Amino acid sequence: MRMYDMIEKKKRGGVLSREEIAWMIRSFVQGEIPDYQMSAMLMAIYFQGMEDGEITDLTLEMAHSGDMVDLSPIKGVKVDKHSTGGVGDKTTLIAGPLAAACGVKVAKMSGRGLGHTGGTVDKLESIPGFRTEIGREEFFRIVEEHGIAVIGQSGNLVPADKKLYALRDVTATVDSIPLIASSIMSKKLAAGSDGIVLDVKTGSGAFMKDPASSRALAEKMVAIGRQAGKRCCALITNMDVPLGHAVGNALEMREAIETLMGRGPADLVRVSTELAALMVWLGDGGGRSEGNAGQRDALGGRFVQGEDGRKACGSPSAGQTAGGAGLDRARERVMEALSNGAGLKVLADMAEAQGGDPRCVWEPDRLAIGRERLEVKAPSDGFMGHMDTEAVGIASVLLGAGRSRKEDALDYGAGIVLKKKYGEAVQAGETIAVLYASEKERLAPAAEKFLSACTVQREKPKEEPLIYELVR
Amino acid sequence: MRMYDMIEKKKRGGVLSREEIAWMIRSFVQGEIPDYQMSAMLMAIYFQGMEDGEITDLTLEMAHSGDMVDLSPIKGVKVDKHSTGGVGDKTTLIAGPLAAACGVKVAKMSGRGLGHTGGTVDKLESIPGFRTEIGREEFFRIVEEHGIAVIGQSGNLVPADKKLYALRDVTATVDSIPLIASSIMSKKLAAGSDGIVLDVKTGSGAFMKDPASSRALAEKMVAIGRQAGKRCCALITNMDVPLGHAVGNALEMREAIETLMGRGPADLVRVSTELAALMVWLGDGGGRSEGNAGQRDALGGRFVQGEDGRKACGSPSAGQTAGGAGLDRARERVMEALSNGAGLKVLADMAEAQGGDPRCVWEPDRLAIGRERLEVKAPSDGFMGHMDTEAVGIASVLLGAGRSRKEDALDYGAGIVLKKKYGEAVQAGETIAVLYASEKERLAPAAEKFLSACTVQREKPKEEPLIYELVR
Repeated sequence: MRMYDMIEKKKRGGVLSREEIAWMIRSFVQGEIPDYQMSAMLMAIYFQGMEDGEITDLTLEMAHSGDMVDLSPIKGVKVDKHSTGGVGDKTTLIAGPLAAACGVKVAKMSGRGLGHTGGTVDKLESIPGFRTEIGREEFFRIVEEHGIAVIGQSGNLVPADKKLYALRDVTATVDSIPLIASSIMSKKLAAGSDGIVLDVKTGSGAFMKDPASSRALAEKMVAIGRQAGKRCCALITNMDVPLGHAVGNALEMREAIETLMGRGPADLVRVSTELAALMVWLGDGGGRSEGNAGQRDALGGRFVQGEDGRKACGSPSAGQTAGGAGLDRARERVMEALSNGAGLKVLADMAEAQGGDPRCVWEPDRLAIGRERLEVKAPSDGFMGHMDTEAVGIASVLLGAGRSRKEDALDYGAGIVLKKKYGEAVQAGETIAVLYASEKERLAPAAEKFLSACTVQREKPKEEPLIYELVR
Repeated sequence: MRMYDMIEKKKRGGVLSREEIAWMIRSFVQGEIPDYQMSAMLMAIYFQGMEDGEITDLTLEMAHSGDMVDLSPIKGVKVDKHSTGGVGDKTTLIAGPLAAACGVKVAKMSGRGLGHTGGTVDKLESIPGFRTEIGREEFFRIVEEHGIAVIGQSGNLVPADKKLYALRDVTATVDSIPLIASSIMSKKLAAGSDGIVLDVKTGSGAFMKDPASSRALAEKMVAIGRQAGKRCCALITNMDVPLGHAVGNALEMREAIETLMGRGPADLVRVSTELAALMVWLGDGGGRSEGNAGQRDALGGRFVQGEDGRKACGSPSAGQTAGGAGLDRARERVMEALSNGAGLKVLADMAEAQGGDPRCVWEPDRLAIGRERLEVKAPSDGFMGHMDTEAVGIASVLLGAGRSRKEDALDYGAGIVLKKKYGEAVQAGETIAVLYASEKERLAPAAEKFLSACTVQREKPKEEPLIYELVR
């Protein structure tokens, strides 16, 4: 086989065979295919796409390029959760403990933040002492004992993706649905859980900027998961505005804890509890290929900003019953775990088991946040309009909350708290956000970036869905 | 400037600015842009194309990436001729001397054969003693004295193209009109002639397999040449069958000489004399931007195989008068130089000046051809049909006439002489070609390849144009 012939074939819209894909991925990982040929292939895939069978073959081959984690020593059904990445997305910190409180086993390997999006591992490390580098046995023991553990990626997991992603990142070939789907799903398959709940973000802060392409990505990933024998479903959620109010590691950790305490912002509560319910549903046997594979459900109607958290996610309304009785029961159990504090206790126990100070969970004000602060004011009267959420993420990086390069150190206390969000009325001079940093000189450039990301408009903007649909 | 942003821009169908192209080419030549980014860009260009302005900017930047040959010390108008490459294409050996005999100065740098196409330098070197590595002063002196010299490419000419072509060659990005046009024209501009006649081949033995894409390529190249201040025109000619009967270095040299002696095959005579006439026409001031830029002329009607050479290219017929009176006069002068042997004398003089044995020109049977021979027989009665000309070129390489790798040595005497061509009637067992080699064991595999390239059909195939049109 020759890589040249395969590039030519894909360039002309041909379909790569399983044997070709296997040979290509193995040879690439072994360094036998040079980067310049692979980047030409990636660009050809960007333009010509891949058929479903090709994407599945690619994903499985990538998954098997390194270690495959065997979670079978852990009793129970292991369910993973993955977000395609967003700004202020702390749902794992809420949905994970809630699902674990309902009996699901969550053995989660998470990434660090890079670019404008944050990472769960960084957020957890804002709890003093919290360790995310933990050996296999201890990891399994914590999951057995507390239902959940979250560690950084370790070992030789999906080296094919590491190599491919590094190349895509510098050759403008990231935004290809087959490549995104295979990258995400290869890691999920290698991570060894029985079920996978995908949170596919859509909007200005997400990879996928519109619901149609998010849906296409969600459908591909669910199909891959099913074909690999996993229980799988995907929720398409809004990332046109940041989720919740906080952006930045300790600020988000605080907000996640507040949410588990029952006083979270409505949008964050709604998305997190729905994700937790889906995890529980998969744990109960939902999302399997025998089921209603490929169905899509529109969930709820328009979402009203400022709605009270508890109200927004109270007992299932007509709009929330999509997914059938099993999912409804899962939703009830999750709301129960939220109301009675069971989810919060799981988080505190996990923090302690992973070396963190559990007092920070019971009293989240203990989490240190930036001393230097700047209130950003509305430039005019009106309503908060569209927000460039990616730019908000970049403003947060400018404050010290993220990394421009892998080697950069993080300032856990840096970040942004939004005081006004999409659709809310503001008056000129009113505070729309507070910026936090350790160094005063970081505030002004971040404020400038943040303001450039906001719009204040005369008309109240039309409401946007918070959750678009469930792909199951 | 960042290469990443430029790849992203082109991927989305954007137009690269002159500054971006300049920065990209310079940085790439200096090794500051890695191959993997450039190959992603090349594939994006394959899919998104380039606007005329972008192609011109790219071509000029490439041309200036190395030495620009200054031919001004040579008196008169210097006209270059370029073929996009084909099998059995020995037109330079005929058109060059004819044009020089008419007073045009031909200071030609030619390439060696690679892959299935031959190279003019290799063909000339089949004349014992012929030197193609000649210093600048001697090169200029020979052109001044005899009107023509043909040497190999030397010096640091268009390093950007060398680097880009090597990358395109291994990333399946050769067949892109903007990339082909900029590659060819950057070399022609750097080579310093005042006029450029392009022979754009179309058909199974050419890069461009159909007349429409050949025309698109021709139009781009003529536009680039004009914008760079050159006199320029392009002839679109048939390469669906090999030109003439001979394929292989000494065999083609013999056929070119025979043609200059007035006994060449009709198709070869027709194309070579038309190219020579266009060179003379440019020398007289034709093909300039003030003229009828962008015009296309259909030339002649259907070409009848087997027509007598002299008759086929006799006094201009109605179909051959396209191009105006200036071109008609040029055609007459070329036919005169063919009839009176002036072209042949120029070739003999040039051969002698470049160290070759001029007796081989006067008596072409002195050129050694392969001792081992094999007659290929028609498998059935019928008519010679479509020929896979690229495969014929490969059969010739198998005989030893070409290189699979740059380092390979050539067997000048190896090759193929076609006895029957497209449209001719054959009987089963009749010889359709003779293969020549030095080593007997090369004959059988080449014969197999050759036969696979031929079709014998019951119906006489429909005639194909020999010359499609003139782009001027």
